[in-house]
Amino acid sequence: MFELLKTDTTTKARLGRLTTAHGVVETPVFMPVGTQASVKALDPRELREMGTQIILGNTYHLNLRPGLDIIRAAGGLHRFMNWDKPILTDSGGFQVFSLAKIRKVKAHGVEFRSHLDGSALFLGPKESMEIQRVLGSDIAMVFDECPPHDAPAKEQRLAVERTIRWARECREQPRAEGQKVFGIVQGGVNPALREECAKALVAMEFDGYAIGGVSVGEPEPEMMKAVELAEPHLPAHKSRYAMGLGTPAQMVELIARGVDMFDCVLPTRVARNGTAYTKRGTFSIKGGAVKADFGPIEAGCDCFACQHFTRAYIRHLLNVNEILGLRLVSIHNSHLYLRVMNEVRAALAAGTFGEYYREFIAGYTPTQKVLSQRKKHTAD
Amino acid sequence: MFELLKTDTTTKARLGRLTTAHGVVETPVFMPVGTQASVKALDPRELREMGTQIILGNTYHLNLRPGLDIIRAAGGLHRFMNWDKPILTDSGGFQVFSLAKIRKVKAHGVEFRSHLDGSALFLGPKESMEIQRVLGSDIAMVFDECPPHDAPAKEQRLAVERTIRWARECREQPRAEGQKVFGIVQGGVNPALREECAKALVAMEFDGYAIGGVSVGEPEPEMMKAVELAEPHLPAHKSRYAMGLGTPAQMVELIARGVDMFDCVLPTRVARNGTAYTKRGTFSIKGGAVKADFGPIEAGCDCFACQHFTRAYIRHLLNVNEILGLRLVSIHNSHLYLRVMNEVRAALAAGTFGEYYREFIAGYTPTQKVLSQRKKHTAD
Repeated sequence: MFELLKTDTTTKARLGRLTTAHGVVETPVFMPVGTQASVKALDPRELREMGTQIILGNTYHLNLRPGLDIIRAAGGLHRFMNWDKPILTDSGGFQVFSLAKIRKVKAHGVEFRSHLDGSALFLGPKESMEIQRVLGSDIAMVFDECPPHDAPAKEQRLAVERTIRWARECREQPRAEGQKVFGIVQGGVNPALREECAKALVAMEFDGYAIGGVSVGEPEPEMMKAVELAEPHLPAHKSRYAMGLGTPAQMVELIARGVDMFDCVLPTRVARNGTAYTKRGTFSIKGGAVKADFGPIEAGCDCFACQHFTRAYIRHLLNVNEILGLRLVSIHNSHLYLRVMNEVRAALAAGTFGEYYREFIAGYTPTQKVLSQRKKHTAD
Repeated sequence: MFELLKTDTTTKARLGRLTTAHGVVETPVFMPVGTQASVKALDPRELREMGTQIILGNTYHLNLRPGLDIIRAAGGLHRFMNWDKPILTDSGGFQVFSLAKIRKVKAHGVEFRSHLDGSALFLGPKESMEIQRVLGSDIAMVFDECPPHDAPAKEQRLAVERTIRWARECREQPRAEGQKVFGIVQGGVNPALREECAKALVAMEFDGYAIGGVSVGEPEPEMMKAVELAEPHLPAHKSRYAMGLGTPAQMVELIARGVDMFDCVLPTRVARNGTAYTKRGTFSIKGGAVKADFGPIEAGCDCFACQHFTRAYIRHLLNVNEILGLRLVSIHNSHLYLRVMNEVRAALAAGTFGEYYREFIAGYTPTQKVLSQRKKHTAD
């Protein structure tokens, strides 16, 4: 399923190829997030045009709305949303632990109340895998427990134990045809827990491995540490996926630490607030500074927005609440994330990733305001 | 500028061709409304794909935001919004009389306060034409006074007198290169006033004529009457434009009464409320009736939305507030308006418009809820 094409000689970065039921994914890859069967503000044509290889869908949200009966009747998530390339679905575990206000963890899953209408629901390994089977995603994720980054040691241990037990249950459930399943490594920043969790999951021989418990409000050094603790215990011939991350610079940092796959709501979320990404960081496209700036969002960018519209026009649209404004910034930001991945893969193929990595990080200025929006991940 | 290609033998319907600085417009034509330099929710590519020939821009709104200095610096409205086909701009008169809460009519225009921040502004024939010159529209409209449909006779007479005087002033102002100017006939449902206004404007030899004072909250019979009163006094070799109208059935009715051009915010406005147009009337695409309906919005429609997405999917998107939902309904509704015009032109060319007209009206059920939204025209 995963072919490791090349490993960087100066870092742990990997060039790979992931084969799924709906096509091949070149890695490292960024997966735009289509929480509710739509990557916010974008249509599938725009996603294809910007080079999207695979998108993410959310089990928790899709199970609530439109509900499984509708997606089953549509013939699966691909057909429901008219997306014929690969889809990865998360398990809903993250949302149950972050969105549901009232919940009770049981042996075989979690009792909780819907964040929409308070109705009583239950989600566990069996339920999650059944939903993902009906969704028909190319890659399903196991149902895990994702504790807060500052959870006490005992809670982290319990979460790892449950995550391992639930992963085993997920492993045994029926799947959609050709559906692959990834395990999720938990364990916070505790080296022993990360190792224990990774080894137990690797023994179960999943099709790939995610590093969970990141992008849950922790400081960036902890995020890096969590990945560094898990990665050495993951097999080289399987994909590694860091869930819910991150900024372009964080992705490049994690690629250098051996990660292949990313998903993040930031590019479309900050777009709706008028924040544009560039390879050097972010800037506000609502401010007066660009009101008569007739250049593109980012010089040299070949996205649909930058090829056809100016900063001044997009600023105007955003300031008068025209939907086209946030569409255009969403296109540019998502395209930028994908473009960075294209460049990373080209550098890996050319054997120049070490150089690309240093230059990228040196040229990128992280914005605190943008980073703080990662914490809202749960709502999307 | 306007070529009358054919006149229907059973009605007053006309097949025509309007040549502007940015290209030829086949009439009868529907003009999507781009109030603030964007047809709401749509991008220029989508507009081109659905066969849009000409769009409308709003002098009042564009003058407030982004402001004339920005559009001048961009090189005009076409370049600012990246639309290279014809644009018609209204004069701002309608908005001054409907949006501005506090206003004072003077000899050479109207003193009023911005509906955005209350700042004092003045708009008259000279100012309106200067703004439209800078916008660089292909067709500019004269600055007129548009009284409420139930205004007393004296007010209607004064409005006609001012409209004629201001039209003469507009006639003398500098224009953008190749810019055409249309006069606007006022006079409510008073036959003498409509005739007087039309004749005075025709004597000034404008490039085309609009019928104003319609779509201002009047009952439909009054709207039809206003057009019937003005039309006989307009020259056959100039375009006729009924401003701010209407439903598909109203457009077809008015085409049969000799009107060539229409603009209306309904297709995109009702789309944002989840109302879809078909050739038989409207229906709500948010309701439970379509939750498992995997057909297109309208059978046989070749718009981007109907070619790629189902009612069930669009309903889901609208119910979870995904922007793509209102984008898709906006595309379909605008396309339906344009498609009806295509069919009308084809019927006129084939000499079968009388039949088309009867069948269309017989098959169309007007929805009161949709019609009532016409009254909100002013806010868009």
